[in-house]
Amino acid sequence: MTTRDSTAPSARPALPRHRLRFDTADMYEAGHGVTAKELAGLQPELARVHAVVQEKSRAGLDAEFACLALPTHMPAGLPAIEQAAADVRHFRDIVVAGIGGSSLGAKAVYHALREVNPSAEQPALHFLENIDPYHLQFLLARLKPESTAVIAISKSGGTIETVVQYLALREWLENCLGPVEARKHQWIVTDPKQGWMRELAAREHLPALPLPPKVGGRYSVLTAVGLLPLAAVGVDVRALLDGAADNAARCATDDPKVNPALELAALHYLLDTRHGKRISIMMPYADPLLQFVNWYCQLWAESLGKRVPGAEPAGTLPVRAMGSVDQHSQLQMYLESRPDKMFTFIALDRWEDDRPVALPETERHTFPYLAGKRLSEVLDAEFRATREVITRARHPNVTLHLPALDAHVLGQLIDLYQRVTVYCGLLYGVNPLDQPAVELGKQLTLRFLNERGKPGA
Amino acid sequence: MTTRDSTAPSARPALPRHRLRFDTADMYEAGHGVTAKELAGLQPELARVHAVVQEKSRAGLDAEFACLALPTHMPAGLPAIEQAAADVRHFRDIVVAGIGGSSLGAKAVYHALREVNPSAEQPALHFLENIDPYHLQFLLARLKPESTAVIAISKSGGTIETVVQYLALREWLENCLGPVEARKHQWIVTDPKQGWMRELAAREHLPALPLPPKVGGRYSVLTAVGLLPLAAVGVDVRALLDGAADNAARCATDDPKVNPALELAALHYLLDTRHGKRISIMMPYADPLLQFVNWYCQLWAESLGKRVPGAEPAGTLPVRAMGSVDQHSQLQMYLESRPDKMFTFIALDRWEDDRPVALPETERHTFPYLAGKRLSEVLDAEFRATREVITRARHPNVTLHLPALDAHVLGQLIDLYQRVTVYCGLLYGVNPLDQPAVELGKQLTLRFLNERGKPGA
Repeated sequence: MTTRDSTAPSARPALPRHRLRFDTADMYEAGHGVTAKELAGLQPELARVHAVVQEKSRAGLDAEFACLALPTHMPAGLPAIEQAAADVRHFRDIVVAGIGGSSLGAKAVYHALREVNPSAEQPALHFLENIDPYHLQFLLARLKPESTAVIAISKSGGTIETVVQYLALREWLENCLGPVEARKHQWIVTDPKQGWMRELAAREHLPALPLPPKVGGRYSVLTAVGLLPLAAVGVDVRALLDGAADNAARCATDDPKVNPALELAALHYLLDTRHGKRISIMMPYADPLLQFVNWYCQLWAESLGKRVPGAEPAGTLPVRAMGSVDQHSQLQMYLESRPDKMFTFIALDRWEDDRPVALPETERHTFPYLAGKRLSEVLDAEFRATREVITRARHPNVTLHLPALDAHVLGQLIDLYQRVTVYCGLLYGVNPLDQPAVELGKQLTLRFLNERGKPGA
Repeated sequence: MTTRDSTAPSARPALPRHRLRFDTADMYEAGHGVTAKELAGLQPELARVHAVVQEKSRAGLDAEFACLALPTHMPAGLPAIEQAAADVRHFRDIVVAGIGGSSLGAKAVYHALREVNPSAEQPALHFLENIDPYHLQFLLARLKPESTAVIAISKSGGTIETVVQYLALREWLENCLGPVEARKHQWIVTDPKQGWMRELAAREHLPALPLPPKVGGRYSVLTAVGLLPLAAVGVDVRALLDGAADNAARCATDDPKVNPALELAALHYLLDTRHGKRISIMMPYADPLLQFVNWYCQLWAESLGKRVPGAEPAGTLPVRAMGSVDQHSQLQMYLESRPDKMFTFIALDRWEDDRPVALPETERHTFPYLAGKRLSEVLDAEFRATREVITRARHPNVTLHLPALDAHVLGQLIDLYQRVTVYCGLLYGVNPLDQPAVELGKQLTLRFLNERGKPGA
């Protein structure tokens, strides 16, 4: 990527350019899944939806599918983000006020990388999503206003949870620092033109980065929404975008044998609509990926969970699991309950911080099979055993092998699932970008708040 | 509870004796759920399963359903647990090595209460569940062996994840402190007679508390498995048992109008078997209950997810959600996807640390409905709006109202769901105490480890 090299600090080491590997064999008929005939029969549809994706992302950030143009178009916006990040980085703690698409992406990447590369020199990110009074008090009691920055993120600039959190954080800063100094602790990411946050930023001269209007919240991790907080804590956001661009390049064809996003979309769609697999369980064997699954669950549910006129509703229910913990919690049910599930395992090929099992001589007779093993080998044996019993229980399953856990790999994963989701939406015939059903709840919330405000209510 | 008063420190304040409240109206026909006729028709079955529960828990810790006798029988075992806890409490950090039933219960209670009553004077609990190399390194890099205690918990004494974690922790302690001193940092909870941990404890004279043999892992939070780590960090474990005992007393009748566990079991069973509600989503509106839902998900899935000869498999898939975060993630799908779901909301009636929304005069014109509101009122409006749209979408739902968030209330919740689960198992005709399907995976794990151990494999 020439863009990357031209602006990157010269000391930055070359990135590992490892690609995701996919093992989809158990999604096909040998694993009681999709038949070759079904996939061949879908090929005209796959060609159609791929053409739509290409067409509707060609216009870059102005395109309908602007989210899929981010890997190639965001590098141009990076200098502004990196400048803001350099300022935020002077604080010890950074509170991100945002909910749903305004937090899950950055949270996913941060949690994935923090345990891999912990550094006492970087600030810590704290995500304040809910309006839970306990959580807010608990967090503020542990932070000092003098050394805390706030990044408030809302696409509309008026998300009620974020407004309430941000107001609380502003009061907390102002009470300690005074209103003038408090403004130096605040950053905003919102619509470039409208909404309360944009207006507030103009009024108080707060630094405010734009979110491209065509990019929806749940597809926005590769904009300032995700890149500002991540860059502030030292994540290599150029590598993140590079990884996404590499995956996008891999997905430039309508051949599902070459384009992994198209293959995964086809398999999910066929398993749901032809084989009754209505639940898709994502189960990584790596603790750092826990939050990535939450990001995926929002992307999938909000994009695909929709009515289809004259047909079954679209979308499989995304369910989160964690290996090996959920072998001791959910596996019994997976193995004996209804055959309505498909699985995505995520396995890590290389662990940087691996260590041998500490098996002293005195315990060798009890655990001979642990002798000479590394921790990751034990986890890998757990993974392979679980995949084997899931396959024997006739649940279709796919394994994503991550060559490492770094920003480049996470960028690939993000772009991959954004593409799979958009392809799936087009296959089902729903709009993967909207969320029409949640408006009523927002209106009712305001109505209930208004009622409470009235005397005697 | 006389047991409590006779041994409690005299300075301990009287407990708030608030009971859980249940709003089940939307589980019935008005909410497109169970009809009065269906419930009446099930009454002979409810009487039968209630009689089984009473009969099989009468013999206390020796009974088949010993787990349901814990609220009345564990107080006798408390002095030994509290003595051990008093020793553990001298350390600043306590690492709990355990997985599944050996961690989820204590984790649930700890996370629920830590943000409510944070105290710098109490030690911190760290749960080490997975064999994830990154997580282990990350944790050990932040702790000091001199000020760290380890509690290793495994019913069988040989759970592979826990053995590996515990071996790593022992090595870490011994490398710094030497083997003699390291032993003073270790506590074990395991079977009273057998297994590697019991044998190790005898060999090295480690303090080792027993787990009643008839109590399975996922039902063991009210034994030393949960009570030792919780008491060590200052949780009022007597109040926890008191709450459980109060709920047990409330469930002493076979009338579902009086016995909330029996009513909930009947409703879940009928909604699954007669109305096709195969997915049960638990969605608390309180961040501190996040881990409680994980505990419930294990209890439910592992107890009920089982084959039934000649019938549909038993058990609904438990799915975790969080209000209001998942309004911005899962709600779109809940509202428009298949009508195969039922919901359990958990709402908190009283927030100790509530604060008014910090709405300055300058922002009042934009958010008039926030004027004079407390954070909990905003959250409550979100909850009521979501429940309303879920009900309008014809999804049956129940609300559990918690009068407060304290040990007594959590004790009620724990006993409640253990009873609901056991009742449901008996209604489906499956054994709620076993987990027959997971054995094969354990055998395969060992086989894969053995294969790797061989040269050339």
